Amino acid sequence: MSILVVGSVAFDSIETPHGSVDHCLGGAATHFALAASYFTQVRVIAVVGEDFTPQHEKVLTDRGIDTKGLERAPGLSFHWTGSYVGNLNEAKTLGTDLNVFETFEPKIPAAYADSEYLFLANIDPVLQARVRSEMKDVRMVCGDTMNYWIADHRESLLKVLKGLDVLLINDGEAKMLSGEQNLMKAASKVMAMGPRILVVKHGEYGATAFFCDRSFLGASSISMPFRAPALPLEEVVDPTGAGDSFAGGFYGYLASQPEFTPAVFRSAMFYGGVMGSFAVERFGTERLQSVSREEIEARFQLFREISHLE
Amino acid sequence: MSILVVGSVAFDSIETPHGSVDHCLGGAATHFALAASYFTQVRVIAVVGEDFTPQHEKVLTDRGIDTKGLERAPGLSFHWTGSYVGNLNEAKTLGTDLNVFETFEPKIPAAYADSEYLFLANIDPVLQARVRSEMKDVRMVCGDTMNYWIADHRESLLKVLKGLDVLLINDGEAKMLSGEQNLMKAASKVMAMGPRILVVKHGEYGATAFFCDRSFLGASSISMPFRAPALPLEEVVDPTGAGDSFAGGFYGYLASQPEFTPAVFRSAMFYGGVMGSFAVERFGTERLQSVSREEIEARFQLFREISHLE
Repeated sequence: MSILVVGSVAFDSIETPHGSVDHCLGGAATHFALAASYFTQVRVIAVVGEDFTPQHEKVLTDRGIDTKGLERAPGLSFHWTGSYVGNLNEAKTLGTDLNVFETFEPKIPAAYADSEYLFLANIDPVLQARVRSEMKDVRMVCGDTMNYWIADHRESLLKVLKGLDVLLINDGEAKMLSGEQNLMKAASKVMAMGPRILVVKHGEYGATAFFCDRSFLGASSISMPFRAPALPLEEVVDPTGAGDSFAGGFYGYLASQPEFTPAVFRSAMFYGGVMGSFAVERFGTERLQSVSREEIEARFQLFREISHLE
Repeated sequence: MSILVVGSVAFDSIETPHGSVDHCLGGAATHFALAASYFTQVRVIAVVGEDFTPQHEKVLTDRGIDTKGLERAPGLSFHWTGSYVGNLNEAKTLGTDLNVFETFEPKIPAAYADSEYLFLANIDPVLQARVRSEMKDVRMVCGDTMNYWIADHRESLLKVLKGLDVLLINDGEAKMLSGEQNLMKAASKVMAMGPRILVVKHGEYGATAFFCDRSFLGASSISMPFRAPALPLEEVVDPTGAGDSFAGGFYGYLASQPEFTPAVFRSAMFYGGVMGSFAVERFGTERLQSVSREEIEARFQLFREISHLE
């Protein structure tokens, strides 16, 4: 089944305790698409500038990702500069050059109209809402956001949340969006805004899924939150894109399955962690370009081993 | 099998967003002993003052806890005053009145000499070391400590660590003790100081066990860290003693089993989380006095349900 993702395809300049890279391929849609491509067909809607070369596009097409929706515009691609020196858990943004992204108007190619799954990566909620309204008949809509939109574009964001089946955000965002410090209370408030399922990412501590609509996962559904572990890692080379890679593994696996069941959903949470754990092993998207399905399955078993009683 | 615990039996005055209590029964050894008492025989070594009444002692003896090692001294019991208003994750200490604890010299009753398991709760490492040296033939030694001893009594603490099989501390303590921000690196450094197993508690995110000595758990042992979940709770009434209750559930279950196997160890991690989750439901030790074995087993199943793929 096809996932349509709208979001940023960008260049990142990143500094971490392990070194630095300049203008490496990045962006939420890129990380998401690469991670999801190991599970299902992915179609991308984004805008890039003249600095985006055929070699960059090949990174996506080599993974079977459909780039018909990748619009070329005059000027430079979106460019983010960030540093994790001193704190690997949170990026310090040193620069955000929107460039071609500033006037981005997502256009959905006709060939994308039959996409069954929609992923609204972290972009302006006005754009998320526009794509959502043009893709009315999808089977599931999953979205991401960030503190900037929560703080300064709340009204637009609330409109997007109404149309989401699943919202994937991190602890700080869940607390900020709800105004609650307690995670359970925060989850209830966020789900009351629209999403039927809330997945909260805890970084090195894994992720928790909360459910407000049991019928979504069938009769024998999950009534309690579900917690998936993260793999303790001795070296995190570059955390950029870990959350988007989690989303790609999670949603890619969901979209690859014929039915939503609690077991499928739980496995999707584990695959999210698995793809996130690969993403941070190298700078940029390097690891996500080269991982094999066998390595993914082996790591899935490792996630089971480190968290299961037997 | 019997666990001998040495630590504080004290009174706590606690303020949380849910209310406040004045001079309720507390102390690391109290929380630990109550939690462990649901699994095995527990013997306590501590000192109390004249304000410790037969009613207080009955809280322990009602749970079958052996209080022969509870020394009475002239003066008042150790009294801690703390507040969680504003931050349920970290206590703000408002007062520490050592009282009779200031001159505490642990004495081990002859009837305790055959104890097979030793738990060194969070007290002065000089006292921990003394008890350890008098209990040479125990089957296992497990210990706790805190930031105060790590920062200002490091030399004494390092001597204690050399004699530990298992050290149970929280994230911040592991990072402080090792000087490493990465949890895996911190764990390696801490285990190089002595403990063969390190259990790091992550509060609302569960706990991780690290193993440096595989032979400890038999041939088919655990090579990777093991992560146990915490139960997402809508209401945390009073976090005081959650870590000690975790330790009691963890160690009490271990001591109740004929053999150490990876499966037993993993279950112990889950029982730790279970007892911690009960402890915070009410002020002080109230919940730990009244929980039933059936409730413990039901919650153990809940921990499995929220973390297992099937």
